[in-house]
Amino acid sequence: MNNSPWLDEVKWDGNGLVTAIAQDAKTQRVLMVAWMNREALQLTADSGIAHYYSRSRQKLWKKGEESGHLQHVQELRLDCDGDVVVLQIEQAGGIACHTGRASCFYRRFEQGAWVSVDEVLKDPAAIYGAGN
Amino acid sequence: MNNSPWLDEVKWDGNGLVTAIAQDAKTQRVLMVAWMNREALQLTADSGIAHYYSRSRQKLWKKGEESGHLQHVQELRLDCDGDVVVLQIEQAGGIACHTGRASCFYRRFEQGAWVSVDEVLKDPAAIYGAGN
Repeated sequence: MNNSPWLDEVKWDGNGLVTAIAQDAKTQRVLMVAWMNREALQLTADSGIAHYYSRSRQKLWKKGEESGHLQHVQELRLDCDGDVVVLQIEQAGGIACHTGRASCFYRRFEQGAWVSVDEVLKDPAAIYGAGN
Repeated sequence: MNNSPWLDEVKWDGNGLVTAIAQDAKTQRVLMVAWMNREALQLTADSGIAHYYSRSRQKLWKKGEESGHLQHVQELRLDCDGDVVVLQIEQAGGIACHTGRASCFYRRFEQGAWVSVDEVLKDPAAIYGAGN
């Protein structure tokens, strides 16, 4: 039932995963990096909403399902050796990171140390609920 | 002789590597994704020139050493879980991909297929020499 030859062009790693970079379509900032399996990439392409594969939870992960911070995909690209995809996305809520920041890349290297330089836009407890 | 605690904050994978994204500091385009080991990241920070670890050749790789397409690093960031770095770089020659294109992400998903949409700026044979 393989009717998706484009998925065969992706070079899945030993665990059946590919690296996925979510980049803000407007600001061009790199927001986060996660993983996709075949199902996640297929669903992303079909729905226009970013789906990933959570390695820690070992299951499909619709980004924002709990937080409401869905990612609407405007463009999908594959690199030369086929093992990384870049998604141009519109980030609902303007928050991609589970710490409540716009981007997961909030630590900058300065004089021999990683320094947090971006503000927390929303308390994670308020994003995910006190029960989590 | 560990005098680099910032390197200990990086979450190296089972092979001692971290994912590294090179992003054009001016255009903000994602140019390529590669890997770094501890030595490569240390050298990158010390020299201001991007160094990676080549998994295929299993050795340190100073990007552009052969092609002249060095990457001058302007900023280095680490993500929330410490397993990906983003480098803001200035790409010498304007070509990051071994295919002679500006970016490795030259294939766009269009109606169920990956379509090459970016031009080859320089023949790879001219970049790397006919002997390679």
